[in-house]
Amino acid sequence: MTKLFPRTRYGEVGTGMTEAHSFLLKAGFIKQLAPGSYILLPLGFRVWRQIQAIVWDVMESHDVQNLQLPILQPQELWQKTGRWDKYVAAKVLFETTERHTGAKFGLAPTAEEVVTQLAAETIDSYRDLPVIWHQIGWKFRDEIRPRHGLLRCREFDMSDAYSFDRDQASMQKSFDLFRLIYAEIFDRVGLTNCINVQADSGAIGGKGSSEFMAVSKEGGEDILLTCTTCSYGANAEKATSIVSAPTLQSTPSASMRLEYTPNTRTVEDLVKLFPNLDATRMVKTIILTADEELGPSQAYQVAVCIRGDLEINIIKLKNALGAQSVEPAKAEIVRAVTGADVGFAGPIGLQNVRTILFDHSVEGLINILCGGNKTDHHFLDVVPGRDFPAPERYFDLHLAVASHTCPECKMGLLQESRGIEVGHIFMLQTGYADKMDATFKGEDGKSHPLWMGCYGIGTTRLMQAIVEQNRDKDGIIWPKSVAPFQVEIVPVKYDSAEQKELAERIYRGLKGKGVSVLLDDRESLQGGAKFKDADLIGCPWRVIVGRKAKEGIVEVKNRRTREVVEMGIEDVFKKF
Amino acid sequence: MTKLFPRTRYGEVGTGMTEAHSFLLKAGFIKQLAPGSYILLPLGFRVWRQIQAIVWDVMESHDVQNLQLPILQPQELWQKTGRWDKYVAAKVLFETTERHTGAKFGLAPTAEEVVTQLAAETIDSYRDLPVIWHQIGWKFRDEIRPRHGLLRCREFDMSDAYSFDRDQASMQKSFDLFRLIYAEIFDRVGLTNCINVQADSGAIGGKGSSEFMAVSKEGGEDILLTCTTCSYGANAEKATSIVSAPTLQSTPSASMRLEYTPNTRTVEDLVKLFPNLDATRMVKTIILTADEELGPSQAYQVAVCIRGDLEINIIKLKNALGAQSVEPAKAEIVRAVTGADVGFAGPIGLQNVRTILFDHSVEGLINILCGGNKTDHHFLDVVPGRDFPAPERYFDLHLAVASHTCPECKMGLLQESRGIEVGHIFMLQTGYADKMDATFKGEDGKSHPLWMGCYGIGTTRLMQAIVEQNRDKDGIIWPKSVAPFQVEIVPVKYDSAEQKELAERIYRGLKGKGVSVLLDDRESLQGGAKFKDADLIGCPWRVIVGRKAKEGIVEVKNRRTREVVEMGIEDVFKKF
Repeated sequence: MTKLFPRTRYGEVGTGMTEAHSFLLKAGFIKQLAPGSYILLPLGFRVWRQIQAIVWDVMESHDVQNLQLPILQPQELWQKTGRWDKYVAAKVLFETTERHTGAKFGLAPTAEEVVTQLAAETIDSYRDLPVIWHQIGWKFRDEIRPRHGLLRCREFDMSDAYSFDRDQASMQKSFDLFRLIYAEIFDRVGLTNCINVQADSGAIGGKGSSEFMAVSKEGGEDILLTCTTCSYGANAEKATSIVSAPTLQSTPSASMRLEYTPNTRTVEDLVKLFPNLDATRMVKTIILTADEELGPSQAYQVAVCIRGDLEINIIKLKNALGAQSVEPAKAEIVRAVTGADVGFAGPIGLQNVRTILFDHSVEGLINILCGGNKTDHHFLDVVPGRDFPAPERYFDLHLAVASHTCPECKMGLLQESRGIEVGHIFMLQTGYADKMDATFKGEDGKSHPLWMGCYGIGTTRLMQAIVEQNRDKDGIIWPKSVAPFQVEIVPVKYDSAEQKELAERIYRGLKGKGVSVLLDDRESLQGGAKFKDADLIGCPWRVIVGRKAKEGIVEVKNRRTREVVEMGIEDVFKKF
Repeated sequence: MTKLFPRTRYGEVGTGMTEAHSFLLKAGFIKQLAPGSYILLPLGFRVWRQIQAIVWDVMESHDVQNLQLPILQPQELWQKTGRWDKYVAAKVLFETTERHTGAKFGLAPTAEEVVTQLAAETIDSYRDLPVIWHQIGWKFRDEIRPRHGLLRCREFDMSDAYSFDRDQASMQKSFDLFRLIYAEIFDRVGLTNCINVQADSGAIGGKGSSEFMAVSKEGGEDILLTCTTCSYGANAEKATSIVSAPTLQSTPSASMRLEYTPNTRTVEDLVKLFPNLDATRMVKTIILTADEELGPSQAYQVAVCIRGDLEINIIKLKNALGAQSVEPAKAEIVRAVTGADVGFAGPIGLQNVRTILFDHSVEGLINILCGGNKTDHHFLDVVPGRDFPAPERYFDLHLAVASHTCPECKMGLLQESRGIEVGHIFMLQTGYADKMDATFKGEDGKSHPLWMGCYGIGTTRLMQAIVEQNRDKDGIIWPKSVAPFQVEIVPVKYDSAEQKELAERIYRGLKGKGVSVLLDDRESLQGGAKFKDADLIGCPWRVIVGRKAKEGIVEVKNRRTREVVEMGIEDVFKKF
């Protein structure tokens, strides 16, 4: 302990942080260098290395090949896949320039381009396949708002793996292997509640991705929806759901009519004004701006029509449009598009948008209420197909929420929980291979694109997720597999010759047996203060050397159960 | 072997490279991604991880605290020490900008600023000291001309440690500890010829530094001078030496004279023209430009006077001037400064330089020859102090070379060898602490600056240095401690059921015992081609499963000695 530096620090460490984050700071596992960037202090380093060792070990046991890729990735590679401009536009990529040549490099946010290039250069034949490469390395993302300690960083450590296969079925096999590998890793590092859910693929692309979520009420940044009955689970960004049935009308109205509806900007306002109409007979029309971040010449407007009791899922909308970004349009844009104030947009006569997208929830509705494209006015008794052109197709654009019905078993209700994304696995198909000409010679003698998957675990983030799930009010309770030390020896008074002698004997004995052990050899502190530090740091076992030292008897305390057992030194050596 | 990918590749891998570099490429340990940037392929990764494990283990056994520092270092920290502008001017620093805030970061070339900041924030009292932190992490230097594989990279892995002490004597103790630690590490990784020499401190600064050099005739980029008699050794950049005695004159000449000396731009030309004068009675005057890289307003000219038989050591001159860079002046500058063509500069009447520096070798000379500052003219019989102002002081500016006398024992001769710098340790004194206000409270209750040392090992470079010293014409001979696998099992014909069965039994058996083992399970290749690959890859031991497989007998071959012993399978398990 006297060599371990820096040590615990109490007092204010910051505001608005989760308990797990503050424990890591106070106990001296991490220290912030800059927003979103942390030093792993000696204690944190020990935990992190054990997480890495578990990841490498599981990978090796499944014959995955470990390698190490550079952090500086040449711009040319990213231009081949078209991701350079996208990532720069999204302000996600850190870039640097080689001064002598002017060559540009991106600081690795992931490594699809680099491994696809490696595959293109080295994989010749179907006989070589499958090839699966894995590395653990530092990654960089220019997060707008880094927060929550190790959970959202600009610089973070990540285990990333990439599989190359001959066809879709083989790709699916590699993907399924990683589902197993990841479950094994999360189990071994001591996550007690980790669920696998469907996810949106985001900027990585591909079709079909799945996230591993460490469930955490306090630390979870993602909202998860799981079925109470079956095994369905999905990130709210991705989740689908069966919504409540609308109050359907049997016969179409004679004609629609425009009504004066002052001060009714929201569905709630309208329900108050028309008590006989419920929200399932109203259609909201929302005006949004897409791709504004690509510059004014690229931006365009769209409208989305959705049932009044539902909200739009922006991620789904982005995917439906194939857009980089989508945001609610600014008030002046809404006014320009609809000719009315915000709150009165409707599908009838709406022309100044590139497209109107209809959510599935609107399908089959008749005699609906919708905005009048005129301030303080709504249409009533509108019949789609009669009063405005019937949509050619409907999209899944609504946000699934708790109490919706499960889309898979169609029986259970969805329930909401919060989770920390600790792993994400993707089926990339042939997208990267096509763009980078990464092919292999098949059994048919012809050239085929490689089928690819990619897989990521945030290893530094994982450290904090483990703490979220393993703590009590006094501090961290490390799982044995990743604990900084298995045992902390706490002599109550290190200036007592008997206690010191016995403590050091146990220390040397355990070290000799290969047990990782920390000795609190501080003379300046006594019992209570040392116990407080030990609780905070959270080694699984504590050996307390106190008054019975002269008899060779110590107390062994389990950090998790708080159970204390007295035993002689020989039993201590037997136990560990 | 069928899962290990990519595998060996023969044929042309590039030109102008050392054998060690080409072996690493051909055997599939590394692959270039961009100039000065390498992928560590699965085999290379395994070696590198073992090097890292040895480094961490040695550090831990000496109670050094391992931690991990971010790669992105805030510009503000570097501005405190004044190194940001220097490194940017020298075009060594890669920098990147956080787009949302405009904050700038340097990509870690070392981490003095970050650890000094950490020390300033966490070290309070002399009771905390010494504190020694160590990390292994990727470093970035914008090398003008990256070359020689892993030896000179833009992106490379480095073990860097930093010590903080209460006074100079304690700093010296930490420095000496690292001398031990480094010798232990280099011994354990299998360097057979590694010497510790005095070195120039370069851009890191401080007073007193020492390099560890892996001696290598082919791969060595540094020239080393060592004494044949005592233990003196130094990098040629730093080495001092005792030069041969000059042919001294006993009485000063009556007066100097200017002579017409056509076509005598060099000392050799002059020796031919004046056979009675040897080079030790000539004084060369060289015009140089300092700090040109800081821009035209910062650049200035200097002259150096040195004995005719010696050359200038530019590094020593740079240090004497406190300059960032020094280069021989361009011809037009020389003409402007001396009023003569290149080759005729002299100290007499020379005015257009900021300073004239005199090397020790000029001290005491009389009746010398020197340039006339007039094309095709030299002065003869010049007496310093009479014919031009006597220098106020002399500097050590000459380049030591083989055959000079050892400066330490003053007896032995210096001899030259070539080495790869694998480690460099520095006494930084209080320079960084002073600039960053990193202090501690001493026993006297007062605030004192921390005394610092820093220590670096290039771990990726070390991999190639090990190969330089451990190879033969057929490939690499890995030391056991860092070998990618201890044993390679080579069944001559894997499609023979007997050989396959026995090979797999040995494979499983050795794996079960925790021996790292590679099985060449390729059916497409037979004996000779597999042996060639095995020689190239260089595992310490090879188990050949051939015709005697049915009797359960195999051949065990030592890669280094090439000795082959037949043995039964039980003896194989006993041996490993």
